[in-house]
Amino acid sequence: MHAPLIALTTDYGSSSHYVAQLKGVIYSALPDARIVDVIHDIPPQSLLHAEVALRATAFAFPLGTVHVVVVDPGVGTSRRGIAVQARGMTFVGPDNGVLGITVAAPGARVVVLDRRGYWREPVAATFHGRDIFAPVACELAGGVLLEEVGSPIDDPLPSNLPQPYIEPGRVVGEVLISDTFGNLLTNIPGALVGDDWRVTVAGRLTERGATYEEGPRRRLIALVGSDGYLEIAMRQTSAARELGAAEGLRVVCEKE
Amino acid sequence: MHAPLIALTTDYGSSSHYVAQLKGVIYSALPDARIVDVIHDIPPQSLLHAEVALRATAFAFPLGTVHVVVVDPGVGTSRRGIAVQARGMTFVGPDNGVLGITVAAPGARVVVLDRRGYWREPVAATFHGRDIFAPVACELAGGVLLEEVGSPIDDPLPSNLPQPYIEPGRVVGEVLISDTFGNLLTNIPGALVGDDWRVTVAGRLTERGATYEEGPRRRLIALVGSDGYLEIAMRQTSAARELGAAEGLRVVCEKE
Amino acid sequence: MHAPLIALTTDYGSSSHYVAQLKGVIYSALPDARIVDVIHDIPPQSLLHAEVALRATAFAFPLGTVHVVVVDPGVGTSRRGIAVQARGMTFVGPDNGVLGITVAAPGARVVVLDRRGYWREPVAATFHGRDIFAPVACELAGGVLLEEVGSPIDDPLPSNLPQPYIEPGRVVGEVLISDTFGNLLTNIPGALVGDDWRVTVAGRLTERGATYEEGPRRRLIALVGSDGYLEIAMRQTSAARELGAAEGLRVVCEKE
Repeated sequence: MHAPLIALTTDYGSSSHYVAQLKGVIYSALPDARIVDVIHDIPPQSLLHAEVALRATAFAFPLGTVHVVVVDPGVGTSRRGIAVQARGMTFVGPDNGVLGITVAAPGARVVVLDRRGYWREPVAATFHGRDIFAPVACELAGGVLLEEVGSPIDDPLPSNLPQPYIEPGRVVGEVLISDTFGNLLTNIPGALVGDDWRVTVAGRLTERGATYEEGPRRRLIALVGSDGYLEIAMRQTSAARELGAAEGLRVVCEKE
Repeated sequence: MHAPLIALTTDYGSSSHYVAQLKGVIYSALPDARIVDVIHDIPPQSLLHAEVALRATAFAFPLGTVHVVVVDPGVGTSRRGIAVQARGMTFVGPDNGVLGITVAAPGARVVVLDRRGYWREPVAATFHGRDIFAPVACELAGGVLLEEVGSPIDDPLPSNLPQPYIEPGRVVGEVLISDTFGNLLTNIPGALVGDDWRVTVAGRLTERGATYEEGPRRRLIALVGSDGYLEIAMRQTSAARELGAAEGLRVVCEKE
Repeated sequence: MHAPLIALTTDYGSSSHYVAQLKGVIYSALPDARIVDVIHDIPPQSLLHAEVALRATAFAFPLGTVHVVVVDPGVGTSRRGIAVQARGMTFVGPDNGVLGITVAAPGARVVVLDRRGYWREPVAATFHGRDIFAPVACELAGGVLLEEVGSPIDDPLPSNLPQPYIEPGRVVGEVLISDTFGNLLTNIPGALVGDDWRVTVAGRLTERGATYEEGPRRRLIALVGSDGYLEIAMRQTSAARELGAAEGLRVVCEKE
């Protein structure tokens, strides 16, 4: 059996010491753990970015991986902490929708973290990542059962991602975030959009393409991105910069 | 016995190749090492940021962890390199105060790195992290005794962190740095400040709170942060941005 | 035998989820792999930065390390993917010159990645890092022979780094990039330049020095950097900021 894999997704920032404190807790509890940094530079408190990251990574690691996902503006308030098991993976984090994709997976089981015996004491009101989520993740990675660390619930908060509007021959969605290269990641599943459909972003017509490079320069192109969703790019440059915006831009796909 | 844990705190920057060169040296010397990135985005040459990071992480890892801490404006000059053992941990870095918190720990032993046989040759005058600190850290992680890698000294440079002024019913300190979220981390131990004391930052009165979220929006709040020190935040936004500053802001705590 | 070491150099950005997707593929294929992040914050699509990073790190890890290097503006086009073995290391990435330093190493063997059986299906046209390079790297790290994953070629693209002009008593080169500290890294091997030569950058005379700190403040100095190349720095500050530029600045070294 391989050492437990614990994947961390946070908005703590790569210039902060908070990530290292999480790792200190994990290595102290599970000296053999292998820790994977998914992202720590989620824009502060952006549930949207965290969900897009999770959409691409939640089920990309070996079975049994335990994800700690902490984007948590409500830390220390009455918002609940939860743990989720779905499709052979485990997720621990706040119940604010950031785990919405996982709780919606078929057969997902969810518990509210209400067993203080599994926490690190004293619990800082401002750092549940270190004092609740990481310790519970270690317990689960070490073999404790989901129902041991909390009580089952059936009402976890759903995803905060806006859903596309879908009708025959037409899908209307939006840009969720832009990536490092200025490509615009949308909420529209690529499989819903025919290769010959007309795609506009913020009212501007795109060409359909398969790669970022081939074809005339500086044209907006719509392609199915590597995560299966429709993506808007601009050849040889940043679409986000060119359009002067990203999040929330309207994307309309229509069969001609 | 578990593989040695080596924790790295530097200002090399996550876009530089210097961190990887350190890791190359470590894996070459200790193939089983587990390397933990504490932070590599300490603002260039900011001893203050490094010390705040170390304050929170120095003793947060399992016993036996070896920390390499390199923020080193004087690299290659006559400033000394040192290794410190304190509270079951080992620290290696320049003698410029960045390890001040560790040398002040009860029972700390300090040596000056003067045994060239443990270094990587040739030593680049500009990269002691790679050529002196990392190699020595590996030796220590591999079982070499502290007194083997250098000669004992009793005058390592102290911490550069400003100390608060403390009198009965009154503590005056300052903001050291702001974190990813714009929260202001101070040099005032939370235990010194009563829950009902009046706390001002840069002359502005704060409310007392326990979390970042509960209570009226956009109010300055003073709370005991997760590392035990007084912290100034602003609800739902960045206190650093709101105050237009961070480092050096005066914080006054008074019993009413 | 130690677990395989896989080193990742990309421009995916530390705020993107693309790196984690690569890691998911690697851990799924090779659960024991040890993954080293070299850099993920190469400026988007900067082959130059990637090559400078590789110049310093390609041969800095233990023998047998497999490097995945992905800066790949032409992903999905007809540009080839390659794998290289040189000096006991293995490199996998696009054939766009980013691996130029490695293909030029004595005895280097190069294959074009044309064996689809070793890829991850379906291959996204925009993410060969995840679907081709990482899977092939895992095969090679796991023991598959170079000539199994592709057909030998003898015309991989060369390095994109500009070469210095060298004549007796005179070397003319240029600044390639600036580092975290604003030091300017050049393409001039330090061994070619005598200690008493006159060195100018952008027409400004430098002093010769060995460290960043000793001597008068705010003077431009030329020194042999830790990677063996001539480097231009400014004492106690950033040379890049002071000169208002970095990449492409002309550096002239002359015997007086």
